[in-house]
Amino acid sequence: MRIAVLGLGAVGRGLLQMLAAKPELGFVLTAVADSTSARIDPDGLDPVAILDEKCGTGRCAPSGLSAADVIASGAYDVLVELTPTNAMTGEPALTHIRSALESGRHVVTSNKGPIATDYSGLAALADDARVALRFEATVGGAIPVLHAIRDGLAGNSYSSITGVLNGTCNYILTRMDDEGLTYEQALTEARELGYAEADPTYDVRGIDAAIKLVILANTCWGLGVTLDDVAITGIDGLTVDALRLAATQDCTIRLIGEAVPAENLLRVAPRVLPRNHPLVIKGTLNAIMLSTDMAGEVTLMGKGAGSVETASALIGDLIAIRDRYDGSG
Amino acid sequence: MRIAVLGLGAVGRGLLQMLAAKPELGFVLTAVADSTSARIDPDGLDPVAILDEKCGTGRCAPSGLSAADVIASGAYDVLVELTPTNAMTGEPALTHIRSALESGRHVVTSNKGPIATDYSGLAALADDARVALRFEATVGGAIPVLHAIRDGLAGNSYSSITGVLNGTCNYILTRMDDEGLTYEQALTEARELGYAEADPTYDVRGIDAAIKLVILANTCWGLGVTLDDVAITGIDGLTVDALRLAATQDCTIRLIGEAVPAENLLRVAPRVLPRNHPLVIKGTLNAIMLSTDMAGEVTLMGKGAGSVETASALIGDLIAIRDRYDGSG
Repeated sequence: MRIAVLGLGAVGRGLLQMLAAKPELGFVLTAVADSTSARIDPDGLDPVAILDEKCGTGRCAPSGLSAADVIASGAYDVLVELTPTNAMTGEPALTHIRSALESGRHVVTSNKGPIATDYSGLAALADDARVALRFEATVGGAIPVLHAIRDGLAGNSYSSITGVLNGTCNYILTRMDDEGLTYEQALTEARELGYAEADPTYDVRGIDAAIKLVILANTCWGLGVTLDDVAITGIDGLTVDALRLAATQDCTIRLIGEAVPAENLLRVAPRVLPRNHPLVIKGTLNAIMLSTDMAGEVTLMGKGAGSVETASALIGDLIAIRDRYDGSG
Repeated sequence: MRIAVLGLGAVGRGLLQMLAAKPELGFVLTAVADSTSARIDPDGLDPVAILDEKCGTGRCAPSGLSAADVIASGAYDVLVELTPTNAMTGEPALTHIRSALESGRHVVTSNKGPIATDYSGLAALADDARVALRFEATVGGAIPVLHAIRDGLAGNSYSSITGVLNGTCNYILTRMDDEGLTYEQALTEARELGYAEADPTYDVRGIDAAIKLVILANTCWGLGVTLDDVAITGIDGLTVDALRLAATQDCTIRLIGEAVPAENLLRVAPRVLPRNHPLVIKGTLNAIMLSTDMAGEVTLMGKGAGSVETASALIGDLIAIRDRYDGSG
């Protein structure tokens, strides 16, 4: 199966490293692009050479080719879309993904924006072209939750999804609770450890968690909801006093995303939970609890971020496509 | 896709109830058998009528047909093997499964015995016939852990599997820890609530957990190990004092199955764990932690038993077979 990779940030490089480390997977890299260059070779590119060139020169090729040229080349069965993308508009990934689906190519992506903004449109394009659109890496990092919903728990109907969907917030809340740090202290620590961005707005205001909740809800129920449908409260207003009060009742506070279609509920907010609740996890972990009619409550937890962890999710999707479509594209 | 169900105990009846409740799944029940009778109709049987007859008469049919007749009839694409089976010898399920695979039929089972005693032989038979042998329901009840290993985390290599694999033991340990009950008191309570069998040997001595560990190890690494390869210590010798001692260090005790191929370790034993360890779960739940090279540690938890929960796992397998083989058998 020939794959084209758009985007050579941490996630793209992580994927290339894993493709180099696991030749037994049998994927052939036929094209790559970063923001200023691209390389196409239908006979296959060496991931290690690409990584070397990227690290040495900051570009994957000297040529004037671009991501658009890669898409147009058609020299691939699956487009792996990993460009730096605006999570609110979904661009430029949205345009890339649409083009690839329209030309009958499978798409795998870790970009939340396109899936959160136009899930219905993209799913319809994929259906029309009888190709796959998979995005396990957009939610819960390495946790194979979308696989569980689609395959492992297939046949179940879901009454709710509840989860810790943002590792930055979970780290901050864990530290406030464990050490009595203020929000600002815990945020500073998270920044120093690389768990929070310089501008943490997107995480601490609950927007990142809400986007993931939208993706889960659309996958699970085909609702076609968007970010505007989510009631969002972040953790940036949370005080140590609130955590202390929860602690007096053997509880703590976590930022929880909740989707309950029967109640029209789509919400991200800090919630008080008993300490032994399955979603009270520590540090940067993520956890997702699926409430089903047959299997009862099933909870999955694991690392919510990281380049190799994201590569795991991307590779799981690539293998699923190969298994289902027999590698013929 | 035509399915034949062998065995109408709690699990078999649970499956028929779910097939009746979810006609949208599109499975056609063409044969059923219990220990004294059987019914075959290539045009399809009504699961509700079968359940009524079973409840009313104790048999699924008045006729002299048997499970062997069902297998020989060939009037099915997938054999669902749910007969009461000796977990140590795997019979009669082992013979049923071999016959079905040899005649080119897919097999789905919740019977641990055949998979634990002859995984390699059955896998080879399935490979030769190019059919599927799936057994999600043998481990962790409703938790789709074998799906996660095969599909969701595909591409990862596993360094270890660790888990709480027996709900009866976990219930007893939870009650001893929470309420200071003795082992005998907690066991009596578990029996009264239906969480432990009249003869609990198989659970409390760790044999059931060890069989599940064997199935996980064989699925994950293709080791071909059997129960004899597992070092087993049960919970029947555990004292309240041991739990009290653990509690003084903010720890507790759980019966943990562990497989670490690099250390030649295959063990079921009570282990002292910190209270906030992901495997310290309450009551009859099961949890399984997979340590992987890319995804890090991924933990899945959920209900470890129950007829509808087991039906969920069986139906997940049936759907996986339909998706992969396109229902053509």
